[in-house]
Amino acid sequence: MAEKNRLVHAFKQTSYRISGHGERNIQVLKDALADVDGEQSSDIYGKGKIIEDFQEKMATYLGKEDAVFFPSGTMAQQIALRIWCDQQDIKKVAYHPLCHLEIHEEDGLKELHHIEPILLADKTRVITLDDVVELDEEIACLLLELPQREIGGQLPEYETLVAISDYCREKGIKLHLDGARLLEILPYYGKTAEEVCALFDSVYVSFYKGVGGVAGAILVGGRDFIKGSKIWKRRHGGDLISLYPYILSADHFFEKRAGKMAQYYEEAKELAALFNECNAVSTTPEHPVSNMFHVHIDMPQNKLEELLAEIYETTGVGLTSYTRPTSDTSCYFEVSIGDSYAEIPKEVLRQSLHLLNKKQSGY
Amino acid sequence: MAEKNRLVHAFKQTSYRISGHGERNIQVLKDALADVDGEQSSDIYGKGKIIEDFQEKMATYLGKEDAVFFPSGTMAQQIALRIWCDQQDIKKVAYHPLCHLEIHEEDGLKELHHIEPILLADKTRVITLDDVVELDEEIACLLLELPQREIGGQLPEYETLVAISDYCREKGIKLHLDGARLLEILPYYGKTAEEVCALFDSVYVSFYKGVGGVAGAILVGGRDFIKGSKIWKRRHGGDLISLYPYILSADHFFEKRAGKMAQYYEEAKELAALFNECNAVSTTPEHPVSNMFHVHIDMPQNKLEELLAEIYETTGVGLTSYTRPTSDTSCYFEVSIGDSYAEIPKEVLRQSLHLLNKKQSGY
Repeated sequence: MAEKNRLVHAFKQTSYRISGHGERNIQVLKDALADVDGEQSSDIYGKGKIIEDFQEKMATYLGKEDAVFFPSGTMAQQIALRIWCDQQDIKKVAYHPLCHLEIHEEDGLKELHHIEPILLADKTRVITLDDVVELDEEIACLLLELPQREIGGQLPEYETLVAISDYCREKGIKLHLDGARLLEILPYYGKTAEEVCALFDSVYVSFYKGVGGVAGAILVGGRDFIKGSKIWKRRHGGDLISLYPYILSADHFFEKRAGKMAQYYEEAKELAALFNECNAVSTTPEHPVSNMFHVHIDMPQNKLEELLAEIYETTGVGLTSYTRPTSDTSCYFEVSIGDSYAEIPKEVLRQSLHLLNKKQSGY
Repeated sequence: MAEKNRLVHAFKQTSYRISGHGERNIQVLKDALADVDGEQSSDIYGKGKIIEDFQEKMATYLGKEDAVFFPSGTMAQQIALRIWCDQQDIKKVAYHPLCHLEIHEEDGLKELHHIEPILLADKTRVITLDDVVELDEEIACLLLELPQREIGGQLPEYETLVAISDYCREKGIKLHLDGARLLEILPYYGKTAEEVCALFDSVYVSFYKGVGGVAGAILVGGRDFIKGSKIWKRRHGGDLISLYPYILSADHFFEKRAGKMAQYYEEAKELAALFNECNAVSTTPEHPVSNMFHVHIDMPQNKLEELLAEIYETTGVGLTSYTRPTSDTSCYFEVSIGDSYAEIPKEVLRQSLHLLNKKQSGY
């Protein structure tokens, strides 16, 4: 598709980007390693100062007894659910229909762990207490993803979370948090990571979303849960001789960006408001509750991509490198605010959205 | 144990080491990245120039249609066996009793893939053609590990390999190579990697053994096999957004050391001969067939560790950082020749083994 190529090409030439922290290139790792003493020893199969110190730091930050560093969230979360299922001797869990495990993992949970997921809520909204109460099957664990990424990063109100947590504890259902973007929601909730995590039995956090590291994830929970996780990590092939490239970069960018989440959140609200001023454009959520949102535009994909490429070529501001059709006449893309947004001169950003508004009506 | 602590402490102070390529520290990665352009883009979930180029390079080197880079060999090999089992609809494989999958992976093959292994041969020797022919159960796949690491890196004769390969092809049994140390055996066989791999349907090679990279592995085979492997890699949680820290270091050290395997092999033979001249000391194999061997010493562990520590303190040559008892009166350790060996002045090395011989009789 010529338009798609043109969009990708035009995006690559832009000087500014509304999403992310800049290019995902080798320099990211070089920056993370720049101040690290080369003489420092590698971690060795899950042991050693580098991995143990970082695990302890994250356990403390997230308010749990223990933590284990994983190469990926995919691995961490399947393992968390497997442990809860084995412990309860129930091979069923419940999660949202757009849960990462359901749509991005080639059915690893089913194919490797033979766990059956019950899908809660419909695809357009987050899970409510009623969804959980009305479940008529026995489950070992409920997984909540905060924010629900595939619907623009929506969140339940904090009171709902507390009510779901209370209900699960009462019923003996383990509650697991897909907190890939946990740090990003703390400003909206006005809570510490520890306060949010206290509602859950196990929590996973990613280091390459808002934190912007190279890869890797942490899983936290009680001491026995983490002990079991390490055994499953080895079974999955995740107990690498050296995970330090990911650990060092996770730590470096955590230090750099954990304190900037409130800024990203404010900027997301500002930018969403600008999009919502444009004709035929709306964001989900209308008022972001984290650093992310989806932009929906009522235009056919080929026309939209042509228009976007023109905007990039004129203003130098890249709004997105792709679009996804939701119908023949509408598309969306995801915005995720990081360090790059603040680098865009405000008048250039406004010009870019002005062009989107103006050109849209011309098509 | 005071002796153990003393051994580890004394080993850390040594200026020379008979095994390895030097310290496993952060500098290894820094060295690998030093000449890499920071502007080069990361691989993204298995796509992109860095990963695709390296996979193609390894497929060519190993003489197979296609290749996929894995974070670990544990993951690569379980997946290879799973694919062959699924394809043949037989949930059984055969391998050596000291196979990595049997003793180092917390039973991942059984717990995740529900594959039953049949153990071939006894623990002291490698698998022969007779072991395979006499199998009275139907298996999907036979795994051979070359060299057989846990018994000092022993190898079958090349004719035996060819005969096993022919037999498996005739019987429709898939043949998988645990070639974690494949490069290390090529000088003994006098074959290219491609020639050895041609005997197998699928091959795994590690990048942090003789190659000395940070971590990571390659799995090669036919196009459909590799296509399936990528799906399972995602299921296992190994399809990371960025594997480049491992890929770049694998490539860097492959270029640096693939051509040095003959040197390591000659040095292993030289060093084994020196050990075998010592009283109460013998190596397995007596004549190494790769860069590795085991050193067996007829002494109780606590006495041996005391003696070794004394040798390190006197000569500055570290022979091993650990010993493992095989009985109340004997122990062994593994030697794996890398770049470090050539740095030891010959007279210092000889003095060190002279002391081992002399002091052994004094205990």
